[in-house]
Amino acid sequence: MSRRYEARRERAVGAVEAAGLDGLLVTPGPDLRYLTGYDALPLERLTLLRLAPRTGPVMLVPRLERPAAAAADGIDGVALRDWLDGEDPYEAAAGLVGTGRFAVTDGTWATHVLSLQAAVAGIELVAAGRALAPLRAVKDGDEVSALARAAEAADVAFRDVAEMPFAGASERDVAANLEDALRRHGHERVDFTIVGSGPNGASPHHGASERRIAEGDAVVMDFGGFVGGYGSDITRTVVVQRPPDGFEEVYGAVHAAQQAAFEAVAPGVPCEEVDRAARDVIERAGFGDRFIHRTGHGIGLETHEEPYLVAGNRTPLEAGMTFSIEPGIYLEGRFGVRIEDIVAVTADGARRLNLATRDLVTVR
Amino acid sequence: MSRRYEARRERAVGAVEAAGLDGLLVTPGPDLRYLTGYDALPLERLTLLRLAPRTGPVMLVPRLERPAAAAADGIDGVALRDWLDGEDPYEAAAGLVGTGRFAVTDGTWATHVLSLQAAVAGIELVAAGRALAPLRAVKDGDEVSALARAAEAADVAFRDVAEMPFAGASERDVAANLEDALRRHGHERVDFTIVGSGPNGASPHHGASERRIAEGDAVVMDFGGFVGGYGSDITRTVVVQRPPDGFEEVYGAVHAAQQAAFEAVAPGVPCEEVDRAARDVIERAGFGDRFIHRTGHGIGLETHEEPYLVAGNRTPLEAGMTFSIEPGIYLEGRFGVRIEDIVAVTADGARRLNLATRDLVTVR
Repeated sequence: MSRRYEARRERAVGAVEAAGLDGLLVTPGPDLRYLTGYDALPLERLTLLRLAPRTGPVMLVPRLERPAAAAADGIDGVALRDWLDGEDPYEAAAGLVGTGRFAVTDGTWATHVLSLQAAVAGIELVAAGRALAPLRAVKDGDEVSALARAAEAADVAFRDVAEMPFAGASERDVAANLEDALRRHGHERVDFTIVGSGPNGASPHHGASERRIAEGDAVVMDFGGFVGGYGSDITRTVVVQRPPDGFEEVYGAVHAAQQAAFEAVAPGVPCEEVDRAARDVIERAGFGDRFIHRTGHGIGLETHEEPYLVAGNRTPLEAGMTFSIEPGIYLEGRFGVRIEDIVAVTADGARRLNLATRDLVTVR
Repeated sequence: MSRRYEARRERAVGAVEAAGLDGLLVTPGPDLRYLTGYDALPLERLTLLRLAPRTGPVMLVPRLERPAAAAADGIDGVALRDWLDGEDPYEAAAGLVGTGRFAVTDGTWATHVLSLQAAVAGIELVAAGRALAPLRAVKDGDEVSALARAAEAADVAFRDVAEMPFAGASERDVAANLEDALRRHGHERVDFTIVGSGPNGASPHHGASERRIAEGDAVVMDFGGFVGGYGSDITRTVVVQRPPDGFEEVYGAVHAAQQAAFEAVAPGVPCEEVDRAARDVIERAGFGDRFIHRTGHGIGLETHEEPYLVAGNRTPLEAGMTFSIEPGIYLEGRFGVRIEDIVAVTADGARRLNLATRDLVTVR
C-alpha cells in the first residue's frame, strides 16, 4: 500500500522537476490523500506537505493532528514535524520551504497562501493545477475500476428513481429519492442531487426546490457522490408522461452532441476538441447560444478536477484520463436538457463508465 | 429579509473603511451566504462579490450559475455580471476590482488568489479574517437563537446515545448512532462524529475506527453539524461501566478548567485570557504539557471561525460572540478527556448554549 503512495510522490517530484519548480506544497484535500493517504480536513490550522527534488518529503502538522497523520495509509517515508496552537505555523513553514518557486495545491486557503507569501522571503507560489496538471489526471487501472463502480452505482440509482412517480412529487422529494438510492447502491457520501423540473431545468446548477412536478414537465437530474473515495456524476433528462412542446428536437441535439463528443475522444486529442465536437452539433441545430457551459470536467478523488474539456485547453488527452461529457441546452422559462456520462480514455479511444440508457425515458 | 443582508453589507463596508482597505472580495462559502444569502459551492469557477466604499456591490458569476445567484435571498441591490466558460474570469475580475488593497475571504482557493494577483496589476490581497475579524464574529439575537437550537439538538443526541450500549460496539457503531441521533433531532447536515475510545481518545481528532469498546474504557465523543445553517459542536467524555486507572483526577482537572474558562468570559476580556484560565487549572494539576490545543474557536455559519481562544489573541470579547470552550488532557497509550460547550458572550458575562451534564457519565 505504502509503495503505491511512494510511487505517486516520486512521480509528483518528477513533474516538479520537469516544470522547473523548486517543490510542491500540498495542503489537505484530494492531493494530500492521493500522495499520503492522509484524509485531513481543510481547516484554518496549517497542514503542509513539502515535496522537492533531492530531499525527502516532510509534512508540517498541528500537534493535535499528529497521531491522525502518523496513522495514515501512505505516510511511511514522510518526516513529520508539528507546531502547537499559539505558535506561528508560517514561521515553521518558512524553515521547511525556503526561497524558490513552488506549486501549491489549488484549493489551499487564501489565509495560508497569503501568510506563506508574507512569511517566506523570496517565495513564489503558482497553482499546482496549472503548473502540474497531470498529477492526478491520469488514473491507474485500480482508479478507473473504482470510478466504474461509482458510475454503475449511479446508473442503478437512476433506474430505481425512474420507476417512481414524478407527477405530484416536489423536486426535493425526487432529490431525496436519488440520495436514498445512491446510498443504497454503495455511495458513502452523496455530493449533489440537482432536480430541475420545467423552467427550473433551464438553470444548469438549480438545486432542488419545493416546485411540484406536473405532467408534461421535462426534469433534469444531475447527481453523484463517492464510492470508495472516487466520484460519480451522471445527468439524465426525463419527461413526465409526455414531452413539452419543442422538446424532442432539443433532446435529439443534446443526445447527438454527447455522442459526437464521445467519439472525438482518443489519446492525443486536445481537450478543447472534445468540447468543439459537442458544440458543433448544438450550433448546427441552432442552439449554440443556449449551451452555456463547457462540455466536461475531470473526475477522480474530486468531482471537478483536471482535465477540463473547454475551449482554450490544448492539453492532449492520455489513456487513463477520466472525465464527464455533458452538453446541455437551456431554454429560459421553458426547460433544459443535459445528458452526462463519465468516460475513460483508452489506448485507442474511449469507454463509457455510465451505461444507463441515453434514449429518452418517460416517467410517471 | 433582504434588508438584513443589506445591513450586513453596510457593516462590512464600514469595517473595510475602518481598516483602511479599498474593498472586500468575497468568494463562495459562509461569508458569501452571510452577505447575500447565496449558497454557492466553492469550486474552480470564479464567483466573486466585491464590496467597496462609495460604490454598490457587484458580483461576478459563471454564466451557468447566474439564475441560482439571481434567486438568492439577499441578492437585491447586488449587480450581477457573468463570464462564460472559455473566457478568462480574472480579466473580468480585474475590471471590477482595480488597483488597491483588498481583504479576501479566508477560504478562497489558491488558484483564485494567485490568478487575481497575476491578473490585476497593483492589487494587494490580505486575508479577511485578519483584516476584518469582526465580520461574522458578533451574532445578532436570531443567530444566537439558531446556535442555541443547534446546541440543544446536540445535547439531546448525546443523551440518546449515552443510553445505548457501548461495551462490544465499535467506535464506528457509536459514530453511526451519533449521526442518526443528530439527524433525528433536526440536523440537516452532520459534520463530524469523533469517537475516541481507550488509547484512541488521546488523539484529539481521531475520527472513529473499528476498535471494539470494552469495559473500563474512557470514550471521547466530539460531534456536531448544522441546524438551520448554524453549527453545533459538543464534546463529552464518558466511561464504560467503570473509569480506567487515574481517570477521575484527569476528568476533574478538565471539568474545573472548562468551568474556569467559562467564568472568565465577559465583554472586554481578551480572547487569550479565556485560554489562560483553562490552562492555569490544567497546569496546576500537573498536566500542562498534555493540553495540546487552544481552548476554543468561534462558531456560527462555520464550525471553526473567529474568534479563536488562543494564546496571542488579544481581541476583546464582545456581547454576541459565540465559541467553544473545550480544554482537554491527552495521555498517550491510555486515554483522553475533553469537555466542550458552546457559549455566548452576554452583556455582563456568558451563557452556555449546551446544557447536557458535564458531570461524569457512566455508560453500559
